[in-house]
Parts: sequence; C-alpha cells; structure tokens
Amino acid sequence: MVIIMQQGAAPEQVEAVIDTVQTQGFTPFVNPGVERKVIAVLGVVDSQKVTLVDKFESLEGVERVTLISEPYKLSSRNYHPADTIIEVGGVTIGGPDIVVIGGPCSVESREQVLETAHAVKAGGGKLLRGGAFKPRSSPYSFQGLGNTALEFLAEAREQTGLPIVTEILDPDDLPMVSEFTDVYQVGARNMSNFRLLQRLGRTDKPVLLKRGPSAKLREMLQAAEYIMVEGNHRVILCERGIIAWDDATRNTTDINAIPVLKQWSHLPVLLDPSHSVGYTRWVTPIARAGVAAGADGLIVEVHPNPSEALSDGSQALKPDQFKQMMDQVRRIANAVGRGPNAG
Amino acid sequence: MVIIMQQGAAPEQVEAVIDTVQTQGFTPFVNPGVERKVIAVLGVVDSQKVTLVDKFESLEGVERVTLISEPYKLSSRNYHPADTIIEVGGVTIGGPDIVVIGGPCSVESREQVLETAHAVKAGGGKLLRGGAFKPRSSPYSFQGLGNTALEFLAEAREQTGLPIVTEILDPDDLPMVSEFTDVYQVGARNMSNFRLLQRLGRTDKPVLLKRGPSAKLREMLQAAEYIMVEGNHRVILCERGIIAWDDATRNTTDINAIPVLKQWSHLPVLLDPSHSVGYTRWVTPIARAGVAAGADGLIVEVHPNPSEALSDGSQALKPDQFKQMMDQVRRIANAVGRGPNAG
Amino acid sequence: MVIIMQQGAAPEQVEAVIDTVQTQGFTPFVNPGVERKVIAVLGVVDSQKVTLVDKFESLEGVERVTLISEPYKLSSRNYHPADTIIEVGGVTIGGPDIVVIGGPCSVESREQVLETAHAVKAGGGKLLRGGAFKPRSSPYSFQGLGNTALEFLAEAREQTGLPIVTEILDPDDLPMVSEFTDVYQVGARNMSNFRLLQRLGRTDKPVLLKRGPSAKLREMLQAAEYIMVEGNHRVILCERGIIAWDDATRNTTDINAIPVLKQWSHLPVLLDPSHSVGYTRWVTPIARAGVAAGADGLIVEVHPNPSEALSDGSQALKPDQFKQMMDQVRRIANAVGRGPNAG
Amino acid sequence: MVIIMQQGAAPEQVEAVIDTVQTQGFTPFVNPGVERKVIAVLGVVDSQKVTLVDKFESLEGVERVTLISEPYKLSSRNYHPADTIIEVGGVTIGGPDIVVIGGPCSVESREQVLETAHAVKAGGGKLLRGGAFKPRSSPYSFQGLGNTALEFLAEAREQTGLPIVTEILDPDDLPMVSEFTDVYQVGARNMSNFRLLQRLGRTDKPVLLKRGPSAKLREMLQAAEYIMVEGNHRVILCERGIIAWDDATRNTTDINAIPVLKQWSHLPVLLDPSHSVGYTRWVTPIARAGVAAGADGLIVEVHPNPSEALSDGSQALKPDQFKQMMDQVRRIANAVGRGPNAG
Repeated sequence: MVIIMQQGAAPEQVEAVIDTVQTQGFTPFVNPGVERKVIAVLGVVDSQKVTLVDKFESLEGVERVTLISEPYKLSSRNYHPADTIIEVGGVTIGGPDIVVIGGPCSVESREQVLETAHAVKAGGGKLLRGGAFKPRSSPYSFQGLGNTALEFLAEAREQTGLPIVTEILDPDDLPMVSEFTDVYQVGARNMSNFRLLQRLGRTDKPVLLKRGPSAKLREMLQAAEYIMVEGNHRVILCERGIIAWDDATRNTTDINAIPVLKQWSHLPVLLDPSHSVGYTRWVTPIARAGVAAGADGLIVEVHPNPSEALSDGSQALKPDQFKQMMDQVRRIANAVGRGPNAG
Repeated sequence: MVIIMQQGAAPEQVEAVIDTVQTQGFTPFVNPGVERKVIAVLGVVDSQKVTLVDKFESLEGVERVTLISEPYKLSSRNYHPADTIIEVGGVTIGGPDIVVIGGPCSVESREQVLETAHAVKAGGGKLLRGGAFKPRSSPYSFQGLGNTALEFLAEAREQTGLPIVTEILDPDDLPMVSEFTDVYQVGARNMSNFRLLQRLGRTDKPVLLKRGPSAKLREMLQAAEYIMVEGNHRVILCERGIIAWDDATRNTTDINAIPVLKQWSHLPVLLDPSHSVGYTRWVTPIARAGVAAGADGLIVEVHPNPSEALSDGSQALKPDQFKQMMDQVRRIANAVGRGPNAG
Repeated sequence: MVIIMQQGAAPEQVEAVIDTVQTQGFTPFVNPGVERKVIAVLGVVDSQKVTLVDKFESLEGVERVTLISEPYKLSSRNYHPADTIIEVGGVTIGGPDIVVIGGPCSVESREQVLETAHAVKAGGGKLLRGGAFKPRSSPYSFQGLGNTALEFLAEAREQTGLPIVTEILDPDDLPMVSEFTDVYQVGARNMSNFRLLQRLGRTDKPVLLKRGPSAKLREMLQAAEYIMVEGNHRVILCERGIIAWDDATRNTTDINAIPVLKQWSHLPVLLDPSHSVGYTRWVTPIARAGVAAGADGLIVEVHPNPSEALSDGSQALKPDQFKQMMDQVRRIANAVGRGPNAG
Repeated sequence: MVIIMQQGAAPEQVEAVIDTVQTQGFTPFVNPGVERKVIAVLGVVDSQKVTLVDKFESLEGVERVTLISEPYKLSSRNYHPADTIIEVGGVTIGGPDIVVIGGPCSVESREQVLETAHAVKAGGGKLLRGGAFKPRSSPYSFQGLGNTALEFLAEAREQTGLPIVTEILDPDDLPMVSEFTDVYQVGARNMSNFRLLQRLGRTDKPVLLKRGPSAKLREMLQAAEYIMVEGNHRVILCERGIIAWDDATRNTTDINAIPVLKQWSHLPVLLDPSHSVGYTRWVTPIARAGVAAGADGLIVEVHPNPSEALSDGSQALKPDQFKQMMDQVRRIANAVGRGPNAG
C-alpha cells in the first residue's frame, strides 16, 4: 500500500500520516529527500485493506492511496491507464507518431556533430543524441569531450532545431548538463544507480532510461519508479539489448520487452537497435522489428565516418544508411497505423 | 576444406580421393552413411590451399572442393548465394511471399484439428501444424495421440488442401510419420540429436529445424549441415526463443537471429512467436516484428479453445485472434515488399 | 497423482485401474511402452486426494499411489528419503566414498586408451570413461571410432579392472554398446532425447545423465524420471556446466546445482569439471570445489598427450596432472568426511 | 600502451609527456581528475613499441610505461606477479589465511548489530559487514538506517575489535561513511558506476568490489582498474553470483570465477555464498566450495533472527549456523593448505 501525499503537503501532515501508520501497527517507510512524499506501508494483509485505505485517505494532505499489487506503482498502467505523452521542444514522444532520435555515440568534434545533426534532420529524425560523458569499460578509453561536447550539441540544436538527448553519469554534472540538454539519458550501466535516478526525479526534464543488460522488466519499472516518486513523471523507457551468450551479435535484442512494457506501463517505450544488435548491417531490420512490435520510437547511432569513430563505430549508420532506414521504418510505422512525427 | 563427391560417385572414386588425401598427409573424415559422400580435410594451412584444391578437383567423381571458412558449409550463403526456395504441396517457402503455418500444439481430437485447419485456411495460413508425438518435460504429461493424430491431420489436409507439418522424435517413427506428413519438424530439444538429423537427411521431404533454446546460430547451421550433408538440402530454419532469465515471458525471442541467419545462410527462416514469447496477448506484436525483421514466415499455435488445450494453451490464438494477426502481418509484409502467399 | 503398478501387473489389472480413473472423471495418461506401467492422474484437487488414494491403492496390481507435488516423482527425495547407492563392477557410487571416473574424451587408439586407463587406475580413479560415438557440433569433425573403440575400452577394463562408462547416442546402438559398457552415458545434448531415455530405462545398467546446457534442475530430474519410470532406477546425475555469456571459460560450472540436487533427489550427483570450466589449468580447483560442495564424485578427462587429442584437448589432464588433482581431491574428501573409494 | 606518471608529478611534466605523445602522432587520453596521472596511448602498432617505450620512459616524471595486452593493466598479474595482501585493522586479506566477513545484510537496530558482531567474532569471523545505505530494487523498500547504522557498527567494532565493511552508494556519502568504515563495499549494482569508483580510488581505505550480475570477469578487472588508476591499489574482488535462468537458486554462483580471477589478477578474491545461492540451507556447501576453489575468504550474511530481517532474511545464517559453517570452512581451508586468520 502506498500513500501519496499532495505536492507541498506540510511536514506536520506527513508526520500525522506516519503516526497513524505506526498506530495501526505498521512501519512506515518514507524515502529520504523526496519532494512529494510517498509513504509505503508494507505487509498489509488483504482483510485490512479497505479499512486502511479509508483511514489514510481521510487524513489531511493525502492525495491518494494506491493498492497496486505490482512492485512498481506510479509507472504501472493500473495507476495511469492512458499512454503518457511527453512533449519536448515541440516533439511528442509516446503519441501517435513514431519518433527517431539519431546521432553519434560520442561527440568527437564540432564538425562531426553538426554534419550528423543535419543528416539526422534531413532523414526525418526528431531529436539529436550525442555523448559528452561516456561510461567506458576501461579507464584508458576515450571518456568524452565533456563540457565542450555540450556546447557543440547546443550549436547543432540552434542550427537544426533538434532537441538534445545526452547521457548523465553523475549527479555532480547536473548543473552543467542541465544547462544544455533537453532530455537526460541514463545509460544501461546506471539503471540501478538509484541516487542518480532520485536526483533526476527532482529535475523538470524528461529522462530516457535505458534497461540494464541483465535487468528484469519489473526491475526496470522499479528504476523508473525511483525517478517518478521524486516528482518527475516524464520517463521514457528504452530497450537496448540484454547480455548475449551467442557471439553472433553484440547483445540480444529483447523484442518481447516492447509489448510487455507497453502493456505493463503507460510510459513511452523506445528501442535502441544500434546497441541491441551491435552491427551496422543488421540495425535496419531490427529497427523495423522494433516499430512493428509497438515501440514508440528508436534511438539510433549515426556517424559521418563510422570507421574513424572513437567509440562504437561498428554499429553506427552513415547518413545515407540512416535515410534508408528511415524510409523503411516509415513504411512499418504506417503499417501499424502510426505516422512519422510532424515535428 | 570439404570435397563434395558427385551424386552416385563410384566407391572406387571415393576410395581414390581418400587415398590422395592420405598421401598428402591429411586424415580424411568420411561421414558414415552419407549418400552423397563428402570428405572433410581438416587442418589445411593457407599456403597449401590452392595446390590442394586443384589436385582434388582433378580427381574423378569429385563435384567440387569448397574452402568455406565457416564451420558450416552447405548451409552457407558462400556456398549457395541465392535464396533457397522450398516447394511443398503447392506452397513456396523462402520465396517472395510470407508463409504462415498454423495449428494446435498437440492434436487432441478429430474435431479440434478439423476446426483449427479450417480456421487456419480461412485466415490465410498456408500449412497446418499439429503434434502427434509430443516431447514433454515430464513423462506424466500428455505425450500425443500418435498414429491417430496423423490420421486426423491427413483428413484435415484432404478437406482444406493445407500441407502438414508435424514433429518427429525418433527415427523409428519415420515409416509412420513419412506416410502422412509433408514437412518433418525437428523440435528445439532435438536440434542436436544428430542421428535423427542424419536420418532426415536421407529422406526427400523438407525439414523444419527449430533452434535449441541455448544453441548458437552457428551451431544451428551446423545442425542443418548434418541434414544437408546426407543429401536433403530442403531445410527450413526456425527461431523459437532462447532461454530467458526474466520471467516476464516464457522465452526470449532472439529477433537478431532473423537477419543474421538470412545473411549467413541461403535457407528460409521462420519465427515461432507462440513459443518465443509464450503468452497469447503478445503473440501478434512479435509476429509482426518477425516479418519486419525479414523472416520468410511464421509458425503459430492456433486452438479453438485454448483454455482447454492439453499443452501450451496459454500461448495459442483463437481462430478470430489468428485472423486479426494475419491482417496485421499482411500489412507488415507489404511494408517490407512481400506479399501474402498466393497458395 | 501417480499410480505405480506392480512389476508384471496383468494387462487386465491396468485396464481396471484406467477404467476406475475414468469413472472418477479424470483422463488417465499411460505412457506407451513402459514395462512397469505408471498411470498419471492429473488435475486432482486437494479435497479429493485422500479418497482417491484409498480407492486406487485398493485396486489389484497397484503398488502404490504417490502424491508428490514436485513435477518429478520417482527421483524425488520425498519418494525415497535415503541416498541411492549404485554398485557397478565392485565400485559403489553415491555411498560414503568419492568416486572419480577418468579417461579420454574420445577413444583414438588402442595405445591411448590403455595408457590412459593405467594412469587413471594409478591415480586412484575407479571407472574408465571414453567416447566411442561422439556427438559433434559439425558433421565434418571426428565422430568416434565406434565399435573398435568399444573393443579397446574392453581390453583396458580387462587389464585394469576399471568398469567402463561410454556414451550412447542412439537406441539403435544399444545392442552393440550394451555388450561392452558397464554404465551408459547420456550426453548433455541428449538430456531431452526422451525416446533414448525411455530405452535406457528398460536396460539393467546404470545411466550417467548429463545436464543439458540450459536445462533447469527440475527438468533434469524430469529427464531422470523418464528413465526411472521404465523400471531402471540406477540413474547418476552429472552437472557439466551451463551456457556461459562470459568467454573467460567454456561453460559456467553451476556449483549451486550440487547441493540443490542432493537435497531434492536421492540419486548420486557427479561433477564434470573438464567440460564445466573447459581449460586444463582450472580443472583441479573446480574439481576440489565440486567435492567440497557435496558431489559424490567426478568425471574428468585424461589424455596422455592433450595437444594431439582429436577432441577437447584443451581441457584434458595429463596423467601426472590427474594424479595431482586426485591428491588434492582426496584431501577435500577427507575434510567433508568422505574417503576415497576402496575399490 | 599506458604511461604511468610518478605520484606528484608536476603539471609541466604531464604536459611535456602529452606533447611528446602528440608529436609522435598519437592522441593521448588523460583521465580527468586522476591524482596520479595515467596517459593512455592507444593504437600503437607492434613495430613502434620498443622505440616508444624508451622515449616515454626517458621523460621526466614518468614512473613506468606498460605494454600489458589485457584491457586491464594495474590489476593484472603481469603487472604485479605476487599476490596483493591487504591489511586492515590487524587483519590480512589475500595472505595465507582464509578471512571471513560476517554480518547482517542491513543494520536494523543496535541490539541486532551488537548481537551479530559478537556471534561473528565467536565463530571466527574477522570483519563485520552491515548495510547502512541499501540499494533496493524498489523505492518503497527499506533503504537502510543511514548514519545511525554507522554509529551502531562503530560501537560493535569497539566491543569486538572487528573492522567494519559497509556499502557506499554515492560519492556524497563519502565524508560520513569514511568517518566510520574500515573497508568500502561497492555493490553489484554499482560495479560500473565509474564515478563512484574513481572517488574511491582517491581514498586510502580498501575497496571490496562486487561483481555485477552480468559483468564479464575482464569487465570486473577493468572496474578495479578505475579505482587503482586513481592511486588506491587496495581492491578486493568479490564474486556474488551472476544472473540465473533457473529459479532453483537466487543467482548462479560462478565458481569458475575464483580460479580465473586468481590467475589473471594479483588482487584478493572473496566469495559471497549468501547472495550467490540465496537460500540459507545451501550457503554452507557453497562456502566450502569457494574456499576449495581457491578463494581468499568469504563474506556471509549472519542475522540473529533471519525470519524477521528487513532484507534478505531467506539467505542469512543464524549464529549457530554460522559457527557450523566456520567449522566446515576451516577444515576445507586446511585441506588446501591455508589456515584460519590469526586475527
């Protein structure tokens, strides 16, 4: 049972709820640092539920009490039956149109970003991705251009109008990243970095949350919950491939995740075919599959010269390959009754 | 290096090739019981290759010598660049049109099979599947109706014209099964039952080979090789889901397998969305994804009354659900430039 | 609910039981070809159980009715609380002493087998393993010496007194293999080859059943059940590694399987450290771990000259390495209160 | 090629090295915020290596240039052939004696911690573990007592003399946690939280690094590298189970990881049998297996009353079970030539 307080509920109201929970014999768990307080009451047996809901909902400052049985609550379709549609810079994600985010894995130079941004725009992409801070397995690998990369991305946005998606690794980078980005990306390695999720939950920009390589889907929704419970409900889920034991591909695209997440949750769901299959030659068929399975869009790596990329070149599309992919994806989108984003 | 003898090469010709291989210092491996003899010469170093190919190809009875570096040879696209198109009972598999195979997991009764067959036909399915011999994890589970089931399937074929696909578990069942079926199905559990594969390689009917739940794609092609090396090149590959560590779905649909197999091999590739996702409500989106990814067709479980099915009821489509799936699949097929089978 | 008939129950007695099951409103499943008939009655609800057990146990020819809730019955410790001890050629498996089976992956020559057998004997091994028929991923790989290999193994047994363990791939090989072997080995690829298991269930020799690379432990016990339900209760379970996504090792040794299987089942449990880790240099520590975890013994690859082995050389121990492993394993065996086999 | 600067090398010395690298035609990567600067020079071809090593090693401020081919360098046994032995509070980890760390998953109360600490001490444990900040899949689960828990742990240390191991989730908690703990624990979810690793690399306390549930062993060593490259070489590796597709156990204990890590790296290696198998009844056999496989020690969950634990109660040992485990582990330690820690 989860008691959701009103935004701005007074501390005394929260205290009164906590007291009542304790009086009823339960240990209340209040998550530290949450702006909109949520009080979890665990271990409630079925016979008590009706009475307790009534009691808690009658308290001052309580917005609602939810009985959702899944381990995720705010991200559940039972909590919010309609699709969540997220608007960012004039683009809507999760609505009727398919949205494609394109751009390089890492921002490497001003020219690279600008050229790619124009190619993404020309191909029909609606947002620009690009890594400024890169989480790399090795400390000896290229770690991103940092602040400089953010400035290049901003210039690309100015020229093309494409909103920016960039990864955030560390709460300490928030002031800098928030100055530039339109959407925060949480990488697969950080899906369970709960402190980072909590901080992003207190921002007012959408969060693109990538699935961890061995995260169960309900764990992914619980990760989204860490963001949402802090007040930021604009979370975009992204399947990016799970660990593979067959070395034929880099990861295993869990295409099942698309319809499962769309049924379990109201949040938009994207597929990242670049990481999930890992080789340029198979990105387009997997992109088609993702849209056919019901994804709300794609996030795809595009690079003007993949063979010289500082990271992940083997899975990037060249501008003309991106354009071809978009043509094919558009036909699939139409076949499932969805159009290209009007931008 | 693989030396492929001509069909009907004389034993003395084979012997002469073997002698020559030995004279050159290699141990020849001739697979027992192969009608078209294939002699593998392993361990040839690069510098010797040109000379040896010339030498072996000049011997009498040799059809060709192949230097294919993959561990699979006859199933490789390097060996046979064009798509293999398999014709069975007037239906073509692997050609321009998408082919859908529908039917119950297990044949349970005459009425059940006939009703399902008509529904499959009405929905646009081109072949009828149905299990007569069921490999079940437990010896206490329903094991299939056996011979009786085959007769029901044959009656359904007579009424609808749909060719039959049924599983074969044991070489000893070959005389009985071959009397009825049009396509042999090898189940996932038997993908590495090499003796069964070898026997099917000596038959003249197509073999639908399901991927083992933890088989790498190259192992699947090597399994196909066991059939092909015996003379039967009509093998249909089928992705049916790999083992999952997320209990959200029954298996993990390896959608990546579709474009990989289509590139590596010339054989037709199907997807079984029923097993690969395992729940009726997600079968249709996964079916769409399979066709969008480039599959040549689907094999789908259909049952008039899934809640009473003796096996796998939770993943079967009812006739009207099958029809809806077909409508959606047809739109995807058109979007990727493929039509429904003209039948 | 499972009704187990007496050995040699008359057909009319079986019929009478089946009639009674049907009269009670259940569909009885009788497995075809079982010598000791077992009749499964599925779907019995709790409230009916006591009455039905009484009714069925009162019928003539019925040995017992079991209510075991696990999907495996005869292999369950609930069915047979004491450890099963299997005696073969004077060696006991599953008793207080640790038993080690050693020998080459494939029998390659008379000299190789004899030399290895003497090394295994000298090191303290109690049985000799050696493959005559090899299931190989590729049809172009060495497939074993067949009958000749069996004769070499028999000669080695004569010289050393070590009973033989060899793999059986195909029911058709039974007459030949049964003439020579003391224990049938079912390889990982065949764990779900239920027809093979059923045939072995009708023999009178122990069966060493290897776990499939993606088989759940309850599926392994269900596979054992296929053998046991036919009358042969002398099944030895063997963990041999599950599929790995980390290429650091060949497979992942599922060490957890050892205590789980020992608790769930009364059957002896072995570990195959050679396959499960896949590299000679790590075989000994994994062998130690297996015995420490509670395994009843080990099956280990030994080869006089691993670098020239026709299969799996990279995981074989040389005779002196085998001796060192045995010394270490003996110390671990003592530490867990078990001695070396008295032979 | 990796150029390691001396501790306290002057900025001008670092600049001079960078200039030289650029002059030679390479792009130097200097990791931001590293106290002991390390400059990676990637893409050096073999023929250039000798010349470049000479050139770079002759520059002022350079400590050494390493050519280690593995993707991890400082953690490689090639870099440091002898075992690393870590001393903390009078206990040595990685030396001849096996070290056992025991304690509750979460610190729940003063009484619980004190009682557990005395039980761990009595049983022969050498360090006390206890979670103050808990990373939980759900934001509604108990998240730890925080600062209060740290104070309870400190009191337990005072009473028992056992050094403390506690998890750190967030660099922002460092000031508080560092005041109390003796060893920082990085949980499995944070193994790839590179920013956290970097911060811990700048501390002077040992770091117990748990393997991510789908991390390859080389990725784990690369994670260790993130800590070591910052100057803190006191890293303890810990296998804690990888994701399992068999629900028989909570995770799959990757016992192979023990000998592999001990060969590849000089760092101490522990096993956490509590998480890796996940059920109390199997913790002891897996603990024995870990030590038999060559682990330098164990980290085990102990709770005075597991059935009332706020987290992970189903895998905790009671004090008497801990004592029994220790008796058995001691016998295994002796069998592999290692003693209990003298403390």
